Amino acid sequence: MHKTRAGIVGYGNMGRGAEKAIQQSPDFELAAVLTRRSPEDVSIKTPSAVKIHVDDALSLRDKVDIMILCGGSMSDLPVQGPAFAKNFNTVDSFDTHAKIPEYFNTMDEASKKAGRVALISAGWDPGLFSMNRVLAQAVLPHGSGCTFWGKGVSQGHSDAIRRVDGVEAAVQYTIPIATAIEKARKGNGGLLTTREKHIRECFVVAEEGADKSEIENSIKTMPHYFSDYDTIVHFISKDEFTSNHSGMPHGGFVIHSGKINDIRQTMEFSLNLSHNAEFTASVLIAYARAAYRYYQEGKTGALTVLDIPLTYLSLKSDEDLRKELL
Amino acid sequence: MHKTRAGIVGYGNMGRGAEKAIQQSPDFELAAVLTRRSPEDVSIKTPSAVKIHVDDALSLRDKVDIMILCGGSMSDLPVQGPAFAKNFNTVDSFDTHAKIPEYFNTMDEASKKAGRVALISAGWDPGLFSMNRVLAQAVLPHGSGCTFWGKGVSQGHSDAIRRVDGVEAAVQYTIPIATAIEKARKGNGGLLTTREKHIRECFVVAEEGADKSEIENSIKTMPHYFSDYDTIVHFISKDEFTSNHSGMPHGGFVIHSGKINDIRQTMEFSLNLSHNAEFTASVLIAYARAAYRYYQEGKTGALTVLDIPLTYLSLKSDEDLRKELL
Repeated sequence: MHKTRAGIVGYGNMGRGAEKAIQQSPDFELAAVLTRRSPEDVSIKTPSAVKIHVDDALSLRDKVDIMILCGGSMSDLPVQGPAFAKNFNTVDSFDTHAKIPEYFNTMDEASKKAGRVALISAGWDPGLFSMNRVLAQAVLPHGSGCTFWGKGVSQGHSDAIRRVDGVEAAVQYTIPIATAIEKARKGNGGLLTTREKHIRECFVVAEEGADKSEIENSIKTMPHYFSDYDTIVHFISKDEFTSNHSGMPHGGFVIHSGKINDIRQTMEFSLNLSHNAEFTASVLIAYARAAYRYYQEGKTGALTVLDIPLTYLSLKSDEDLRKELL
Repeated sequence: MHKTRAGIVGYGNMGRGAEKAIQQSPDFELAAVLTRRSPEDVSIKTPSAVKIHVDDALSLRDKVDIMILCGGSMSDLPVQGPAFAKNFNTVDSFDTHAKIPEYFNTMDEASKKAGRVALISAGWDPGLFSMNRVLAQAVLPHGSGCTFWGKGVSQGHSDAIRRVDGVEAAVQYTIPIATAIEKARKGNGGLLTTREKHIRECFVVAEEGADKSEIENSIKTMPHYFSDYDTIVHFISKDEFTSNHSGMPHGGFVIHSGKINDIRQTMEFSLNLSHNAEFTASVLIAYARAAYRYYQEGKTGALTVLDIPLTYLSLKSDEDLRKELL
């Protein structure tokens, strides 16, 4: 089998997860890890892969079939996404929901010009959760749907806090509110406001001498991330942070409940994840498979998980899928 | 909006459910109900729809855009499916898993010759559950997956019992075994045999003078349906049947759990259905939308839910889906 040669852009939690997911996928090989650090300072687990500075990406143009963009959505992907889409097939997990239409258009233009495919927002939300929202609305159009996250650490939100001036380390837990979950299961999830569904709890290590009240205010008023929620900010020591807040659990569920003439039908999709970034990376690799197949079929432009038939995600033939899994 | 003109073939529980689902879908209108009974004896809820004998289906060739085949998988669909696919776009919920490859090929040949689309096996299992099995295997290839059904009434299995000689009425409850569910959540679902996962419990009303031990034996040894399970058969009176076994609840879940280096990731999709046939009919209408779009794009042949991107199921534009649901 010709293996699809993947490049990983950004070797943090998600990049390392992508490397593991590639190792589990017999149709993929890791060709390169691209980093903003000095490549010699980065220790990777795939001896055959090239380590290279992200600025030298163009030298990989004929050596990488698809780039797995593992940067953050706030400041990395808006720049890296279009830059890479000009020269490579790409897949990413862009997760700033409010900015997806704009990001899609930017990536669509860049990838179409380059004759490449850019599959955006392929994680679990946006991603698998989005798929279940669309499916449930189509099957039960008179129903009411609701998405809950947590309890768990949100990478995107933790990342956003760490970019606030004076923050040394931070983690954010998203906590669903129990009474809201019950309402959703009874079909009343559509009436809940953003604030009624989740609390955002933040544990922050401040830099020495930093203005804590200013940090707290910057977090609580941050648009898209915190301003629509009841947010709790705790300042803790570096030691407490390391001891108690180093894991990356997450999860959540998409509930959709339709009731017609006293007949209730409820669809629920849930995830229980010990490691959010590694799971997101696993989704990225499955969708990298699909994106590269689209490219091989001559398609170009931006795509999302909603555009991809499930057959494209699997290593099995369509015939075997019908026989074994349908 | 030009409405898609649907025909319902078979006006039992699922056919009536399809009529309700069409009423909830602004892009569909019910053009005709086709029945094996005398049309004048069938009372439908859509005054504008034609009632017609199934033998006169050809007269609808220019009046129906897609036929919703609501017959049973054991003896109706193997005959009706290919017969209708020769002249119409079709969607069905063929659910004899072991015979899907053969049925797919038959429907593919018939629909391709006719220049039509035939979307098969579009219910919840096969159907939505199949989608989740494929998705989970693709995302967590080193994980272990398991599907459970119930507790609930299986239409297909109840139907199969009713076709046994000497049976007046029957209902079959599929009951998942609790210890098996726990094993699946811990990632050991793949080791379970069919028999370890579910019990099949049947409540049967025998015709007067029928040989009950022969009925019981016919049920328990029926291939595909009962022979691989521990099956319990109860004979009850018609009155008890009517009072206690007239509902059609069902549900179940697809659990997939992957564990790598002590990191467990679990995906779960579940349904809690008050009315199985109506839910299946809702799925059929969503996939009828997709099938007719495929036909309008010039595609032909057989398809399954695994071939359809989620965008095709929705009334919303791709742009609105990205904005509102991604």
